[in-house]
Amino acid sequence: MALVNENYLKLTAGYLFPEIARRVRTFEADNPDAAVIRMGIGDVVRGIPRVIIDAMKAATEELAHDESFQGYPPELGQTPLRQAIVDHDFKSRGVDVDIDEVFVSDGSKCDSANIQEIFGLDNVVALTDPVYPVYCDSNVMAGRTGPGDGSGRYEGIVYLPCTADNGFLPTLPDRHVDLIYLCSPNNPTGAVMTRSSLEEWVDYARKEDAIIFFDAAYEGYITDPEIPHSIYEIPGARDVAIEMRSFSKSAGFTGLRCAFTIVPHDLRGMTASGNSQEIRPLWDRRMSTKFNGVCYPVQAAAAAAYSDEGRKEVRGLIEFYLANAAIMQAKLTDLGYTVYGGVNAPYLWIGTPEGVDSWEFFDILLHEANVVGTPGAGFGAAGEGFLRLSAFQQRHIVDDAMARIARL
Amino acid sequence: MALVNENYLKLTAGYLFPEIARRVRTFEADNPDAAVIRMGIGDVVRGIPRVIIDAMKAATEELAHDESFQGYPPELGQTPLRQAIVDHDFKSRGVDVDIDEVFVSDGSKCDSANIQEIFGLDNVVALTDPVYPVYCDSNVMAGRTGPGDGSGRYEGIVYLPCTADNGFLPTLPDRHVDLIYLCSPNNPTGAVMTRSSLEEWVDYARKEDAIIFFDAAYEGYITDPEIPHSIYEIPGARDVAIEMRSFSKSAGFTGLRCAFTIVPHDLRGMTASGNSQEIRPLWDRRMSTKFNGVCYPVQAAAAAAYSDEGRKEVRGLIEFYLANAAIMQAKLTDLGYTVYGGVNAPYLWIGTPEGVDSWEFFDILLHEANVVGTPGAGFGAAGEGFLRLSAFQQRHIVDDAMARIARL
Repeated sequence: MALVNENYLKLTAGYLFPEIARRVRTFEADNPDAAVIRMGIGDVVRGIPRVIIDAMKAATEELAHDESFQGYPPELGQTPLRQAIVDHDFKSRGVDVDIDEVFVSDGSKCDSANIQEIFGLDNVVALTDPVYPVYCDSNVMAGRTGPGDGSGRYEGIVYLPCTADNGFLPTLPDRHVDLIYLCSPNNPTGAVMTRSSLEEWVDYARKEDAIIFFDAAYEGYITDPEIPHSIYEIPGARDVAIEMRSFSKSAGFTGLRCAFTIVPHDLRGMTASGNSQEIRPLWDRRMSTKFNGVCYPVQAAAAAAYSDEGRKEVRGLIEFYLANAAIMQAKLTDLGYTVYGGVNAPYLWIGTPEGVDSWEFFDILLHEANVVGTPGAGFGAAGEGFLRLSAFQQRHIVDDAMARIARL
Repeated sequence: MALVNENYLKLTAGYLFPEIARRVRTFEADNPDAAVIRMGIGDVVRGIPRVIIDAMKAATEELAHDESFQGYPPELGQTPLRQAIVDHDFKSRGVDVDIDEVFVSDGSKCDSANIQEIFGLDNVVALTDPVYPVYCDSNVMAGRTGPGDGSGRYEGIVYLPCTADNGFLPTLPDRHVDLIYLCSPNNPTGAVMTRSSLEEWVDYARKEDAIIFFDAAYEGYITDPEIPHSIYEIPGARDVAIEMRSFSKSAGFTGLRCAFTIVPHDLRGMTASGNSQEIRPLWDRRMSTKFNGVCYPVQAAAAAAYSDEGRKEVRGLIEFYLANAAIMQAKLTDLGYTVYGGVNAPYLWIGTPEGVDSWEFFDILLHEANVVGTPGAGFGAAGEGFLRLSAFQQRHIVDDAMARIARL
């Protein structure tokens, strides 16, 4: 009899976003005339810049002809793209990353879900609370936790509450942990880790021989010059950190699928018998066995995002969404809501009204204002009492959503 | 201290194809004037049909404009593509597949590596020998095996030798197994499973409550009307089988990345405590948590492969490669080699000369004829004494390769 992976049965609910989609579908079926505004899933809405589209179409045309056809992509990514990443994302900020340390993938969601596979099941995992659900669920599915407690927490995970009291920046645990997921600018709170906060974590990881998974998918939204864009801007981080980046929220690649992960040569883990083991070859093996590279025209498109014109256009997209966030923050604050995030980040983290929990507030917004947010409780127990709104919308829709919320 | 997944350290060698690439790179560096012919990796070489390219470019252009922009793809795939799959791949052959049973992905390699994740570690896995290495390595990495024995076999796996004696069709094991990987038309041997052979396996799986992973990535190469294209053509298979298909070798998508997997509603596994559990929701959860959908323009391209013109063009590509295979089979047989496969399949499985093992024959072909094959031993212990040649080449290159081998 084929046995199922029973760890999946520990997952307490459907993945957050499918559940939101289900509620929205039901509402729309019952209210076919309602014009629902989506500010829930952090999905971009604006067209991809011309220079990127044209590069993708040109690479697609290459595949039509025997002379220029390319088959299987290099498993770790096209060299021109990887070189552009090294130069523009790291060297330009004084950070040395070797091209062999760059692994191109089809998404930061995938990378952040898969990265745990190359580590043992006996590691103690630390997650912020609230947290991007993929970090948690992928560890539950792998069997690195006990059962859930119904509030979204699982036995065996060390939670790092991020609350208004600590400025939504995770505080060091008072015990040893092995694997730490950090996300800055943060999804869902919109908080950004300062240099000193990152230094504290790198220092902790070095002392504890822990490894940090640093999700920098929203790095492009940092405008404050004091905030590091890469964890490798912190001395010593190459020994303790893996960094993930994405083209989704910068160049508008949510529908194209391209991201990358940096695994430094210096990063080492341990076997149970105490042998030191380089991590990079394990990720290389994982990706060359369980993955087959990113669509060639998509990689050509990603490379074009690093051209002079591409970078200018991408900056324009980010500034547009940041201006949305500023409008939303001002308006919601005016309306008396407590609002965090929305600066250096495309997410706003809004306190729910007194006595209203986050799924209730989600339902009120959906039913009364026809605006879709993301209930904070979906991101963890400490997310209760908050709702995430995304700034990824057209300007007139943002204005409309704010007007509807004002009428509540 | 962060512990590594030590199962990775059991893997006895680099993944086969990177190792071949390494030997070829070394040879080319030492012999810069040699014109190496690649018939090793099963990668297509001909341009993708115009109707498919144009659909992809049109979908890419949609993403340039706010009005037609699409973000995150539906996690299980675009409805028009899934409907085309249901209609053309299954309904047309009298097989009922529900659209909800179709999961679009970025490759059959990925799907066949990932599928084991939703099953428990205590299942007994059966693999053919020789076998596509991904089935084996993904189970080693997950911890479903003991150590390797140096010949490519791992403790705990039940091997099903496929030899000239059994026509390279796996014989039923004389013991219970839980998870069975079958591939037809076969990579690497080019053998195809007959209806009666498939019936035997479906019958075995039903009796033993086992589950078959049926890899039909080369289904398009079947020309014999007696050979089933889908395992679901066998009555009762919906209760015991998952089927994987790909656009790579039919429509030339190796560089675009699109495939799909069918998980029937009827398929059930068991928990350790004996509860029956539907498998489909587990795969749905796996894909919606650890994957984020296939590039939208690639899905539009895949849908165009099902248009009247697309199907005609794809058929032309397949017939071209099958004609290559026929030329190779005739020529190599003439030269005195023992040749299997190459009919209903794009691979030829060639006996190595007396006293020459498969890596030696690989090196001889590389160094003396500058032709790259794939050593049979790389696919498993029973692959020793064989070399795989792929028919995925331009015609004049096939002719050249045959002439070079004739001069050996």
